[in-house]
Amino acid sequence: MHPETSPLSLAQALIRCPSVTPEEGGALALLDAILSAAGFWVERPVFSEPGEPDIENLYARIGSGAPCLLFAGHTDVVPPGDAAAWTHGPFAGEVADGMLYGRGAADMKGGIACMLAAALAFLKARGPDFPGSIAFLITGDEEGPAVNGTVKLLDWARARGERFDHCLLGEPTNPSRLGEMIKIGRRGSLTGRLTVHGRQGHVAYPHRAENPIPGMLRLASSLIADPIDGGTRHFDASNLEFTTLDVGNAATNVIPADARAVFNVRFNEGWTAQTLGDEIRRRLDVAAGNAIRFTLDLQPSNSPAFLTRPDAFVDLVAQAVEAETGLRPALSTTGGTSDARFIKDACPVIEFGLVGETMHQTDECVAVADLERLTAIYGLVLERYFFG
Amino acid sequence: MHPETSPLSLAQALIRCPSVTPEEGGALALLDAILSAAGFWVERPVFSEPGEPDIENLYARIGSGAPCLLFAGHTDVVPPGDAAAWTHGPFAGEVADGMLYGRGAADMKGGIACMLAAALAFLKARGPDFPGSIAFLITGDEEGPAVNGTVKLLDWARARGERFDHCLLGEPTNPSRLGEMIKIGRRGSLTGRLTVHGRQGHVAYPHRAENPIPGMLRLASSLIADPIDGGTRHFDASNLEFTTLDVGNAATNVIPADARAVFNVRFNEGWTAQTLGDEIRRRLDVAAGNAIRFTLDLQPSNSPAFLTRPDAFVDLVAQAVEAETGLRPALSTTGGTSDARFIKDACPVIEFGLVGETMHQTDECVAVADLERLTAIYGLVLERYFFG
Repeated sequence: MHPETSPLSLAQALIRCPSVTPEEGGALALLDAILSAAGFWVERPVFSEPGEPDIENLYARIGSGAPCLLFAGHTDVVPPGDAAAWTHGPFAGEVADGMLYGRGAADMKGGIACMLAAALAFLKARGPDFPGSIAFLITGDEEGPAVNGTVKLLDWARARGERFDHCLLGEPTNPSRLGEMIKIGRRGSLTGRLTVHGRQGHVAYPHRAENPIPGMLRLASSLIADPIDGGTRHFDASNLEFTTLDVGNAATNVIPADARAVFNVRFNEGWTAQTLGDEIRRRLDVAAGNAIRFTLDLQPSNSPAFLTRPDAFVDLVAQAVEAETGLRPALSTTGGTSDARFIKDACPVIEFGLVGETMHQTDECVAVADLERLTAIYGLVLERYFFG
Repeated sequence: MHPETSPLSLAQALIRCPSVTPEEGGALALLDAILSAAGFWVERPVFSEPGEPDIENLYARIGSGAPCLLFAGHTDVVPPGDAAAWTHGPFAGEVADGMLYGRGAADMKGGIACMLAAALAFLKARGPDFPGSIAFLITGDEEGPAVNGTVKLLDWARARGERFDHCLLGEPTNPSRLGEMIKIGRRGSLTGRLTVHGRQGHVAYPHRAENPIPGMLRLASSLIADPIDGGTRHFDASNLEFTTLDVGNAATNVIPADARAVFNVRFNEGWTAQTLGDEIRRRLDVAAGNAIRFTLDLQPSNSPAFLTRPDAFVDLVAQAVEAETGLRPALSTTGGTSDARFIKDACPVIEFGLVGETMHQTDECVAVADLERLTAIYGLVLERYFFG
């Protein structure tokens, strides 16, 4: 077995693997070595997709009986950007003033290190013959296009008869303090492309042209004039953000032919992509009347809103968090999408991990003390999950 | 003298010179040869500007006394676009079904051919010792940046003591029938660039970002919500057109930092670029309140609104038009800018030329009969201008 199994050592070792998507960077090989040594059955399936780089993934399990608790996560990280702008090298894994620095420290090599350290400690204390099984589902394609990652890994596992009872995904869920927030669901995501059609012409002869920009101003305004909904018990109000608005006309004396906008909606469980798309189209139709010609393309969404309704498993995790941090975690559905949207079809999934404040930023970091406390939380979850 | 001085022959010869800005293409050389042979003093000044191609121009005069009637125009043309899309070659000067085809047929080699044919006929009938003088001010830089054209040519002429009493600019002024419209002024043109500033972030965390697009929708809408004015006796209402709206954000999960718009206002004599800019800024300030951060850049405008108030010269031209066409021409200030905006500082200027329906288009053309009638109109103007 690996000599050093503290969460800090594991997190440092993972950070030192430069696993920027799609590179494996040695991160999965490291997990493989440690999990294998601890008695896990480990597989490293590689998935391919035309036009995309091949991606390595990892699946590991110890035990064969139910219940099976699945730890899920990803070892790939977003690029460090300008490495020279970092106070500590993005792949150095340095500790300073009680903080561990490095790309992935929060998102989510730190979380994986804690899961691993907790599982190793649990096995050391309880031995391999505990009543149930522990699995790890770790992808190298979460920050990228996510086509060769969790979705295929779940299919792969299902085809091999692997069944899971509950999943704990270790994404950084806490806005600023460890213990603040468990995520029990996520809003859905729907992207739309709106084009308003006009007719090109000279600005001095507007009656011979049809400027699409006033129409775009009207239609786009109609989508944000009123809230989409008021939120639900577990979800914030759905929210639409325009992400771009483009005409691309360089000639200041020419009325352009078309104007294009793209928007993204994060929507709650009150909607499906279909019903939300209908509502968006209805608003546009009302605003357009017979005066504005437009096209709306709604991109197929694989991000539905979902909710893991609070139950005994959610309580178990929440109580473990409270026992270690003294904070009663909020059960939240806020934030960006995660691979939980895929895992929810395999078993109930909730997310709890480190503090995400610095994720994707320069000088990404986590508190060393948080690594230890998160390991203790995961350890308590394991203990109570299998031994009540 | 050139053997063929019919307006059709002259127009064909000019069209066959491929004088797409900045190329002279032989067009000014042709005018030079014909005018010199007719007894004009001809100069061909070349003007330069750092970063711009050198441009040839032409100035010609016959007679030295007052009054001096100036014919103005340009021999440069806009590019033909896809030459294969033309029914008749853009530089072939072919006649079919009574129409002369070619780039510049309407804008404005046809007009120049008529001026020239009229002047040659006038000189043939009256001889060189008529009471006054006739000048030609022809640039090769009207369709381009116009920095080495009429402005410098007027300065050049002024420095040589050349003085003009009235100018007739031969741009195509008739929307669809010869005789419909004389232009006695033009609206001014002002271009503005509006940037709304936000703060970049993730679409799932809009409270941590500041989306500039809703602010842009609000500010842009405020500029077109109410008319700028109601027009004046000789001018249409001022009109603002957005020409582009750009964010350029390709990531559908990212709230962008800035949104940019460009607009162009065609304004009437009720405004100067300064007072209009103040009004635009006032509207934006009201719409923005303290909630929207924006920057407005108004480009320096060399296109003020101007009006040549109807007087005896306007009457003379209008009566000549009516005599030849049976139509009483509207005295208009509509349409795009022209070099008249520069000439107005040298002498009263009005514009009358061919039918502009096909200008700048594929298969640009004019009726051969219109070339003959416009030559007759210009001839009548010359006759009445010098002999009452």
